[in-house]
Amino acid sequence: MGKQKMILDCDPGHDDAVAILLAAKNDVLELIGITVVAGNQTIDNTVRNALNVCQALELEIPVYAGCGGPMVREQVVAGDIHGESGLDGPVFEPLKKEREEEHAVNYIVRALMESDEKITIVTTGPMTNLAMAMRMEPKIKEKIKEIVLMGGCYQNGNVTPAAEFNIFADGEAAYACFNSGLPITMVGLDVTRKALCYPAIVDRMEKIGTKASKLFVDLMRHFNKSQKEVFGWDGGPLHDPITIAYLIDPTVLTVKPMHSEIEIRSEQSYGRTNCDFFDYQQKDHNSDIAIDIDTDKFWDIVEDALKRY
Amino acid sequence: MGKQKMILDCDPGHDDAVAILLAAKNDVLELIGITVVAGNQTIDNTVRNALNVCQALELEIPVYAGCGGPMVREQVVAGDIHGESGLDGPVFEPLKKEREEEHAVNYIVRALMESDEKITIVTTGPMTNLAMAMRMEPKIKEKIKEIVLMGGCYQNGNVTPAAEFNIFADGEAAYACFNSGLPITMVGLDVTRKALCYPAIVDRMEKIGTKASKLFVDLMRHFNKSQKEVFGWDGGPLHDPITIAYLIDPTVLTVKPMHSEIEIRSEQSYGRTNCDFFDYQQKDHNSDIAIDIDTDKFWDIVEDALKRY
Amino acid sequence: MGKQKMILDCDPGHDDAVAILLAAKNDVLELIGITVVAGNQTIDNTVRNALNVCQALELEIPVYAGCGGPMVREQVVAGDIHGESGLDGPVFEPLKKEREEEHAVNYIVRALMESDEKITIVTTGPMTNLAMAMRMEPKIKEKIKEIVLMGGCYQNGNVTPAAEFNIFADGEAAYACFNSGLPITMVGLDVTRKALCYPAIVDRMEKIGTKASKLFVDLMRHFNKSQKEVFGWDGGPLHDPITIAYLIDPTVLTVKPMHSEIEIRSEQSYGRTNCDFFDYQQKDHNSDIAIDIDTDKFWDIVEDALKRY
Amino acid sequence: MGKQKMILDCDPGHDDAVAILLAAKNDVLELIGITVVAGNQTIDNTVRNALNVCQALELEIPVYAGCGGPMVREQVVAGDIHGESGLDGPVFEPLKKEREEEHAVNYIVRALMESDEKITIVTTGPMTNLAMAMRMEPKIKEKIKEIVLMGGCYQNGNVTPAAEFNIFADGEAAYACFNSGLPITMVGLDVTRKALCYPAIVDRMEKIGTKASKLFVDLMRHFNKSQKEVFGWDGGPLHDPITIAYLIDPTVLTVKPMHSEIEIRSEQSYGRTNCDFFDYQQKDHNSDIAIDIDTDKFWDIVEDALKRY
Repeated sequence: MGKQKMILDCDPGHDDAVAILLAAKNDVLELIGITVVAGNQTIDNTVRNALNVCQALELEIPVYAGCGGPMVREQVVAGDIHGESGLDGPVFEPLKKEREEEHAVNYIVRALMESDEKITIVTTGPMTNLAMAMRMEPKIKEKIKEIVLMGGCYQNGNVTPAAEFNIFADGEAAYACFNSGLPITMVGLDVTRKALCYPAIVDRMEKIGTKASKLFVDLMRHFNKSQKEVFGWDGGPLHDPITIAYLIDPTVLTVKPMHSEIEIRSEQSYGRTNCDFFDYQQKDHNSDIAIDIDTDKFWDIVEDALKRY
Repeated sequence: MGKQKMILDCDPGHDDAVAILLAAKNDVLELIGITVVAGNQTIDNTVRNALNVCQALELEIPVYAGCGGPMVREQVVAGDIHGESGLDGPVFEPLKKEREEEHAVNYIVRALMESDEKITIVTTGPMTNLAMAMRMEPKIKEKIKEIVLMGGCYQNGNVTPAAEFNIFADGEAAYACFNSGLPITMVGLDVTRKALCYPAIVDRMEKIGTKASKLFVDLMRHFNKSQKEVFGWDGGPLHDPITIAYLIDPTVLTVKPMHSEIEIRSEQSYGRTNCDFFDYQQKDHNSDIAIDIDTDKFWDIVEDALKRY
Repeated sequence: MGKQKMILDCDPGHDDAVAILLAAKNDVLELIGITVVAGNQTIDNTVRNALNVCQALELEIPVYAGCGGPMVREQVVAGDIHGESGLDGPVFEPLKKEREEEHAVNYIVRALMESDEKITIVTTGPMTNLAMAMRMEPKIKEKIKEIVLMGGCYQNGNVTPAAEFNIFADGEAAYACFNSGLPITMVGLDVTRKALCYPAIVDRMEKIGTKASKLFVDLMRHFNKSQKEVFGWDGGPLHDPITIAYLIDPTVLTVKPMHSEIEIRSEQSYGRTNCDFFDYQQKDHNSDIAIDIDTDKFWDIVEDALKRY
Repeated sequence: MGKQKMILDCDPGHDDAVAILLAAKNDVLELIGITVVAGNQTIDNTVRNALNVCQALELEIPVYAGCGGPMVREQVVAGDIHGESGLDGPVFEPLKKEREEEHAVNYIVRALMESDEKITIVTTGPMTNLAMAMRMEPKIKEKIKEIVLMGGCYQNGNVTPAAEFNIFADGEAAYACFNSGLPITMVGLDVTRKALCYPAIVDRMEKIGTKASKLFVDLMRHFNKSQKEVFGWDGGPLHDPITIAYLIDPTVLTVKPMHSEIEIRSEQSYGRTNCDFFDYQQKDHNSDIAIDIDTDKFWDIVEDALKRY
């Protein structure tokens, strides 16, 4: 049996960059396309960052620019953590790799409709592109194996007390995805906050000595510096790549089936992922929610990926 | 100076059919494309209806199928009034005219981006296609002359006490359009409820004797029958073509600049167009709202159009 | 059979003053108590105004001070129309009449629980006192004959596009009253906006020559001056006394049973009375909504009351 | 300096009963009155339970019956955990102690207005009585030293994913209290879920051998049985008495000043306490939120209280 085809929809972003790095080289997944959305930074920046990462890693994966803002609400970006470019830290070569002409949303529709097998969709930014694609062509749902997203939290948010950034940035898109009826696995702050990339981890990865480990180290040193300045933390949470690590080895996460709803009706709680952890409401389990992470395994998977370059 | 180019985005529907009829033949507007959305009926039905109307009237206008449901919320349709097909009444020839391959949303983006002049967009159904197009490519805003929509009301709704059907069917799309910063004119129930197509009007149009008047009469006889059965009214309101009549002759309507907001946060009032008629809130006037109609002029414009076929 | 006992809960206010005037002298109603709430002005002002009106008219009706703000939301007042005192215009004698010691909410509970017969409650301000009384002692519901309120609208509001002032000022209280299961008649802007007190009406009432007509004229001349300055209208709508006129002679109003809900979940549409005029939702008719007024009859009732002093 | 006067507003409830037990005998607090609200059970049940607890412990503290339901929303009760009576487990003597005549809300107003010193209010049920009292007489705020409540959570709720029971049961009341401007300390599920009353704790308390320890043991054996049946837990969280333990010895809890808002606008997230743990929103700190508990100290305080009877 071949590898599982997947599309990575992202908004690089330091942790998105590491997600690309993991998704592109492993024994389980075949990354057939990267689609980009605004989020951590504006769409021009996130597209350029995705191209830079691919070029630096010599990845021949097509990159498609998608939506420059959320479906309905006004745009928010998260500049503080990721710096002015959205990927401050590494110094990249002049950019030669070019984005594809096709719009990311149209690409997602076409790739799925043309595919004979089901494709996994991973989103590590606001879920705009995927939600738009499902609206443009609802039939693509039949071709989606599952959705794995970094986003949300059933405990405390990271933009407001209620909401995590990716969901907050486009609550309506998340609402559409969670209500799609598709298998969906949420990798939220509840576990990603435990994957802290402490200096010792960075040092460990530096020893690998590949161009990928060099990139990782340049990214993480800057990322940790921001986390220190903004939050006072020694190591920042490496949110996004956990989605990929989970697909490579599902035992990285403990997931629990729950009923989840996305809050889009309230100003105050907008973007909350109301996951019924204790099953108080006795509703159908429309989502698998990550509740714990084996961080040792996670870092091993990262290390393994860095060695493959 | 040439005619003003326009795209009609509709969900035929009896009154949409009359809107097509008016838009296609007059001295002011050049109807360059018809885009279709789900609303009065499912997308398959509304597209077939649009094609049937064009074929019956021998119109060489391309018809594009668009979104089969709203951007975010679950779908609602309005079958009672328009019958099983969404256009019950006339008997159409076997359908030869075909829909275009391109998705309506992509067509709207392309038509606008390729145009040297600004284009008017008229929507007579849920505003999904237009909102999706603005999200896919925000730059199209620079190419839109104005939006004229049938929808909304500042008084009492027609689906819930708060909301009119087109806005209720995709409140998020309407929210995005009203907040786009573009000139927008709302032709709502406050005026369309005054354009009642009484039997005397139908008789008057029947005398014209063109194939268009035949179509009009077949449509309206069925439409009025439904209105009678559902609401007990002798003549149904001919909502949609008022948008076109207004573009042909702006004196058909009295419009008043107001600040308007679309309610998408409440379950109960979802889809309300909160138009500040009395300017209580002293906010910027982001919309022109129709507050009165000269129905004599309106029926004259309809008559004139029917004669042109 | 004796007169129907009633309590008037008000926030004078020019039109509240006229409501007191009507309620105190007629063949149908026995006004057993006046309870006062903040609304048109702060509680201290509205209580003083109520006392002044009673003293000026030599009414021996007890006046109880109630809640100085809404149940839950932050307070709003409506100073522009009613002037600094809330009852600018007439010059009152030094005030000798005193408020009762008992809190209006406790009075409402006690008066109802001690009564052998059912009592009518009329509210012409925010519904705070009544809602609080029903919460303090739910058993009072059995003693309430009906609630007649001035407030709400099914068309366009007068504070926001969605809401009328009395409901907007305490939406939660209105919500509790409309959901109480009690018979409730809403006299909203939809009819009160038709009871415009034009100068010719004021002149007509002036000729009566009683102390009550003198008070009426002093009130209305100032009220109309405000309406002219704020809205540009020649005669202001005399909202509140229509409730009393309706109880004196129900044919003053055309009322229609409807399902009504109060919007308290939305910031934008807060305080809207969603009355299902066309019965689209086919829900139970929990309210009678005034949809038309016989203004000739109304002014005759006012004239009759003024003659009784 | 004398003891700090306090009023306990509760809805017994097993854990409320333990709160009474602690509040009545210690070196720091003088419990001057117990006010009762509906919540864990109907008002008749919670009042009877409060009286039974006082009688069993021979406490001469007046008990006042308060509101039988929430301010605005429809009533919910939490019968599963506390049994049919709301206090299943102990067998009480025939009840001789009587409730006071005065309504709890009026008592709170009077007690505060008549007091020369500031009084602490502890609520361990829905906050209805306190919010009603503040609305009846806003001046009582000047006499409230602080509010300490059991309720809320900044992580996962216990009725819905968003909300804890006491806040969910009357979100509007909680909203009014949190927005009162008074010092407020929230003892929420985030800490109370750590105070699990395991069988070993029950055994330890049994050895004390006072009538209070007997009552405690009878209560907890039933409470734990319910927790086991409903949630599968060996020991239930003893939520309410932590408020009292904290007032006796503030080092029992770690509290963190935060900005907190109560969600009352959303159906889905209704009753959520949005506490800005990480200060993302940089708003004023209007509340102290308990984030950790020293359970050893807590059980020592409980033990000490049981010995005082």
